[in-house]
Amino acid sequence: MKIEIDQERVTSELDTLGAISQEAPPVVTRVVFTEADVEARQFVKTLCAEAGLAVREDAVGNTFGRWVGENPALEAVGTGSHIDAIPHAGRFDGTVGVLGGLEAIRALAHAGYKPRRSIELVIFTSEEPTRFGIGCLGSRLLCGPLDPATAGARIDRDGVTLDNARWAAGFEGALESVPVPPGYYSAFVEMHIEQGPILEQHSIPIGVVTAIAAPASLRVIVEGEGGHAGAVLMPDRHDAFLAAAEIALAVEASARSSGSNDTVGTVGVCDVFPGAVNSIPSRVRMEIDVRDIDEARRDAVLQKIQKASEEIASRRGVKSRVELVNADPPAHCDPSVVETLVQSSEAQGLPFERMISRAYHDSLFMSRIAPTAMLFIPCRGGVSHRPDEYASPEAIAQGTLVLAEALARLSSQ
Amino acid sequence: MKIEIDQERVTSELDTLGAISQEAPPVVTRVVFTEADVEARQFVKTLCAEAGLAVREDAVGNTFGRWVGENPALEAVGTGSHIDAIPHAGRFDGTVGVLGGLEAIRALAHAGYKPRRSIELVIFTSEEPTRFGIGCLGSRLLCGPLDPATAGARIDRDGVTLDNARWAAGFEGALESVPVPPGYYSAFVEMHIEQGPILEQHSIPIGVVTAIAAPASLRVIVEGEGGHAGAVLMPDRHDAFLAAAEIALAVEASARSSGSNDTVGTVGVCDVFPGAVNSIPSRVRMEIDVRDIDEARRDAVLQKIQKASEEIASRRGVKSRVELVNADPPAHCDPSVVETLVQSSEAQGLPFERMISRAYHDSLFMSRIAPTAMLFIPCRGGVSHRPDEYASPEAIAQGTLVLAEALARLSSQ
Repeated sequence: MKIEIDQERVTSELDTLGAISQEAPPVVTRVVFTEADVEARQFVKTLCAEAGLAVREDAVGNTFGRWVGENPALEAVGTGSHIDAIPHAGRFDGTVGVLGGLEAIRALAHAGYKPRRSIELVIFTSEEPTRFGIGCLGSRLLCGPLDPATAGARIDRDGVTLDNARWAAGFEGALESVPVPPGYYSAFVEMHIEQGPILEQHSIPIGVVTAIAAPASLRVIVEGEGGHAGAVLMPDRHDAFLAAAEIALAVEASARSSGSNDTVGTVGVCDVFPGAVNSIPSRVRMEIDVRDIDEARRDAVLQKIQKASEEIASRRGVKSRVELVNADPPAHCDPSVVETLVQSSEAQGLPFERMISRAYHDSLFMSRIAPTAMLFIPCRGGVSHRPDEYASPEAIAQGTLVLAEALARLSSQ
Repeated sequence: MKIEIDQERVTSELDTLGAISQEAPPVVTRVVFTEADVEARQFVKTLCAEAGLAVREDAVGNTFGRWVGENPALEAVGTGSHIDAIPHAGRFDGTVGVLGGLEAIRALAHAGYKPRRSIELVIFTSEEPTRFGIGCLGSRLLCGPLDPATAGARIDRDGVTLDNARWAAGFEGALESVPVPPGYYSAFVEMHIEQGPILEQHSIPIGVVTAIAAPASLRVIVEGEGGHAGAVLMPDRHDAFLAAAEIALAVEASARSSGSNDTVGTVGVCDVFPGAVNSIPSRVRMEIDVRDIDEARRDAVLQKIQKASEEIASRRGVKSRVELVNADPPAHCDPSVVETLVQSSEAQGLPFERMISRAYHDSLFMSRIAPTAMLFIPCRGGVSHRPDEYASPEAIAQGTLVLAEALARLSSQ
């Protein structure tokens, strides 16, 4: 069987999807359940229907496009990723796995392949934590580790609950109905841009992911004493923002002194209250992301941050509260699916490298319910989450080719 | 003449005005040209009209209520303050000078006093810099130091120009028409809460202000390199927020090491972009307020901040840009108006203390066009710009009594 990828079609579809944004192109901002997110979902669903896939959606908006196999009773082979995007992001993060996954299915059909097992494309809801403060919302619910009742009650910055947001976007069932039954998938493969520089630097088209780093996130609330910026003397102040600034620097120092370059710590959100030039900040809310491929080392960094916050708060006479929002264990990919990806790369004559994923993905949770692995493609400069994020049409086509080969192998088993 | 202040009336009017807020009481947020600001203006204008004052408004929304004197051709005596409030503020900052000024006029009229000169109550637009980044917008324009064309083009955080905002609020003339002619006021007196602890600590009801501290504000933009919080290793980062955190701590250190407790430095605004938990900050915007009663010492602190920003930016491989938004000279109050306030306090049997104002006020600019002084009343704990800001009905009534006495003396000259 000769699999042919329609490189121009995928490129054009990625362009169209990239233009569906809350901001002007090339900036992609597509936060879950906004108008842009709903419009992007509609675009992808239409493509799935045009490709002959049976489309269904669950109560949290996870969307499934199934190519029914010769034996529909067998566990299906899954592939897919997400289409939501953080503020001021780019066109390829997540979307390459969705539109590339669809193209892989179309290419197999075009080649006359008849799958024994069904192949199912999955578009996961809110892989990005932007709106509700927790990443992989859809896959967490699908795979079980997130309690539906707690999930539905989560609120965004404006106080809107996840339940109200999903209802407004048209997803009305009970969240309890989201988890799939045991043995639903026989295997799951997610294609994604690397979000790191290794493949590009070594001119290798395919990364075969063997493990996904363990992410954790903290929310820190600092409460100090507000007041007039002109009238309160410096020694009498309990400025919440200055304490937060010290805590942010402690996050950096803790991550840098972990003993490994694999440890990263980031303060991505800092909201200062009341936020007026002539008012001493009384309250600050920061969101912190800490990751490592070694869970114990990561947790040691979390403890250092907690300790530093306490010391800084006590010294400055402010209150600090550190909440652990989530701390997931790292995922190890399934050896047989990894091996299938290796063989698929070899079969298509494309060099590959085994690597770890520093970013987390929906596969982190899919690995709990199915033999899972990931396939990386190079991206320019290793950058992502930025408008200049870029993967070439050739790189996407090569990844899609290996993905199609792997889906064929997995679905014929 | 026996002047009687209706303490209950002023208290009740302050309560009503305090409830006109963008947030639920007791929190007062009343940003210029919002619905709450417009409603508050209407409330005060109605009170002025009921008191028989002739009301006019200028193109930037400064509002004037004139009690026409026996000789209307003479320069008028002015009094007043502002009614806008920063986010999450209280009920007394500014409003005491407006509603107290109105009550002083009503008390004089009730006592049968006939002023030789007209007495004019002024409600200045946007004393607080919240929306357009510059304080005393109305008095700056009224008194000349702010160029009308530049002023009209100033934008808020949402990109709305001052011109568009004032037009939407119903103020439609040319800003060029705002400045009053030379010699419009023979004297100006502003009553205000102290925003400091001295009067309360010494149980003194009246502060006679002899000088107003010199404020300056800076805007700092830090541009670093964004990226995925999981994928970019710590040594490769150019995190804009970490640089900003260091700059904020440098602001504190520079102010504290100036050699005087009179120097204060505050970072009240810090906007982090893109502001997602899993994204390295690429851009930060901070607004900094530095004040001192000594202009040279203040300017030395500004230079230290500039130098620290450059050093931090260079060390971290980010760009920083420090803009001087404004740096006004301090104001010295007019000795003869100060003397009138002293005599008025003595005449009413109320102890007073001469003091400086650490906060700036519209009087800073009024002092450029008229002999000006200020009258302070105690506020609880010296706090302001907070929902728990408080001045007692007695303290307000005592200040209003001295203000009325002073207005009588100044308007009969």
